[in-house]
Amino acid sequence: VKRAATAGYGAEIIEYDPEETTREELSAKIRDERDLILIPPYDHPHIIAGQGTAAFELFTDHPDLDYLLTPCGGGGLLSGSAIAAKGINPNCKVIGVEPELADDATRSFYSRKLQTVKNPPTIADGTRTPSLGNNYTFPLVLDYVNEMLTVTEEQIKMALRFLFTRMKLVVEPSGALGIAALLSGKLQPEGKVGVILSGGNVDNKIFSTILLEGS
Amino acid sequence: VKRAATAGYGAEIIEYDPEETTREELSAKIRDERDLILIPPYDHPHIIAGQGTAAFELFTDHPDLDYLLTPCGGGGLLSGSAIAAKGINPNCKVIGVEPELADDATRSFYSRKLQTVKNPPTIADGTRTPSLGNNYTFPLVLDYVNEMLTVTEEQIKMALRFLFTRMKLVVEPSGALGIAALLSGKLQPEGKVGVILSGGNVDNKIFSTILLEGS
Repeated sequence: VKRAATAGYGAEIIEYDPEETTREELSAKIRDERDLILIPPYDHPHIIAGQGTAAFELFTDHPDLDYLLTPCGGGGLLSGSAIAAKGINPNCKVIGVEPELADDATRSFYSRKLQTVKNPPTIADGTRTPSLGNNYTFPLVLDYVNEMLTVTEEQIKMALRFLFTRMKLVVEPSGALGIAALLSGKLQPEGKVGVILSGGNVDNKIFSTILLEGS
Repeated sequence: VKRAATAGYGAEIIEYDPEETTREELSAKIRDERDLILIPPYDHPHIIAGQGTAAFELFTDHPDLDYLLTPCGGGGLLSGSAIAAKGINPNCKVIGVEPELADDATRSFYSRKLQTVKNPPTIADGTRTPSLGNNYTFPLVLDYVNEMLTVTEEQIKMALRFLFTRMKLVVEPSGALGIAALLSGKLQPEGKVGVILSGGNVDNKIFSTILLEGS
């Protein structure tokens, strides 16, 4: 569905084999060949600032939140959300959530050394990034985030079913990581909790399968 | 899912065979036996007023809408929405939408005589009501509604898929009738169009099947 939506906006789509190269290498090569400007998906101040606007709006309405749970892939959404949250309420605890199968940011956070992961087979495809960004998002996550958590694939699916059944929302697996962490019971927060839900680009067949597994 | 949700709120659930009696007969009998108060699902001024609050909010924000499309089952939502819309913008055209398989209100509207339907096999289960309400909703629909339209089962399913894929919303078949009418092309409105989406109580298995049919 992401490919179809991208094509729908008129994009030229170039395929690659993730076993042979990386998205970063290939896009740098194409940029150089065609003299283009590269818009990085997360490791850039503008992207981070833009990703932080949802949390900014949330904290503008509810400055007294005690926790903020945010999905983490490349760390753009997490670092932007953390900056916005802490800027309005420095006492709020910001927690990043990753799939267990793509736990590079969690390992990076606790070892304070950038760790990587290669093509993790998680259903949360927005978190299949190789690592946090070396230039911006890794340092920002270290500075602004209080805790990192991981959730299982089954917990992610449970979160999708909960959002579908109870909230009537279609959220993609990566976007539901914060709810997955809450429902998993791994975190037992006291006080008011905010959760960033991000993205609804989920394939109908995959979503149907997840729904039926829970029936 | 409606049954499970109702039981979840602590209700006593009484089953009946729609071939043998009607909901109205059975509930009147139970009311008399147990000296209870009956809350009718649509044919009552309080229900109609409550159902009209969504359109009231919509027109408070957007008083210049040229059209309002609203699902129609028993007519509570439609008559309440029409009163609210016309109260704020008398020039707005209010259009009620029914499944072709349960077109009793459309036939009632154009014949100006109350028509019925018996257990119509439409996927839009919220519109399986036998008729508009004789006391309130039928007269109100005649007075306040400009037009009635019907849509096919396939058009209802298309609307559900559109809402899922493009709006990231889970809407039950009955609730998506207004969007179904728009997407069907049966109505070619000019100007600003408002649509009431009502209800998200849809069985996971049924929803999955509808999603997969469109893949």
